[in-house]
Amino acid sequence: MYIKLDFESNEPIYTQLKHQIIAGIAKTELKAGEGLPSVRALAADIGINLHTVNKAYQQLKQEGFILIHRQKGVVVNPDGIPQADEDYRNGLKTTLHPLIAESVCRGISEQEFIHYCSQLFMEFHEGEGEKK
Amino acid sequence: MYIKLDFESNEPIYTQLKHQIIAGIAKTELKAGEGLPSVRALAADIGINLHTVNKAYQQLKQEGFILIHRQKGVVVNPDGIPQADEDYRNGLKTTLHPLIAESVCRGISEQEFIHYCSQLFMEFHEGEGEKK
Repeated sequence: MYIKLDFESNEPIYTQLKHQIIAGIAKTELKAGEGLPSVRALAADIGINLHTVNKAYQQLKQEGFILIHRQKGVVVNPDGIPQADEDYRNGLKTTLHPLIAESVCRGISEQEFIHYCSQLFMEFHEGEGEKK
Repeated sequence: MYIKLDFESNEPIYTQLKHQIIAGIAKTELKAGEGLPSVRALAADIGINLHTVNKAYQQLKQEGFILIHRQKGVVVNPDGIPQADEDYRNGLKTTLHPLIAESVCRGISEQEFIHYCSQLFMEFHEGEGEKK
């Protein structure tokens, strides 16, 4: 998997790294149980601070995306990612609320907004083939 | 318009305040040219710090939602909210990307995700009546 960071973005580097790993899992480029580079190796590879990688990994661990073993290293959660529960769904709606409020103010229609969502879902489901 | 803040939330108070004002505009509870309380009055009303209200108002001003006149006070942008341009649309897709990646990982279907979006659009368009 190829990590691409934008050092000019307002989005913190650890957040970008975290999002790309989650996107890799969503696209099944990273599979359950698959190994990820150690904090040290990834930091050296992409030329960023150890603490930045560590922060991304710790959050991914907390949210159930990866496991960090002292010996086996970092792996994508072999039991699969914890599925959405009621809390997650409520959090998602809370996150979508201001995005949609602002879109309404700025004249983006429901159709257009949903079109963008569908395009992104398609991006994650490409290459799934039979699974779909 | 009634402001409701959650002091136990992880979301900063100024962000909550900003989102509620944007939601008020989206719902047309706050109309173009309508006056908002001064920083001082709003801070006193809801019992929060002046700087918190100021931060929310400054961001709302920068993003074109309100104008802050030294004499006339704070008003919802009388020319209407700047409509979405290409940059705004790209930013929206960039914001939706990780939300959808995580939803895919956690087993939320496109249908379910879009259902939440539609519900929220409905919330903002209720009471619009003839405008719809």
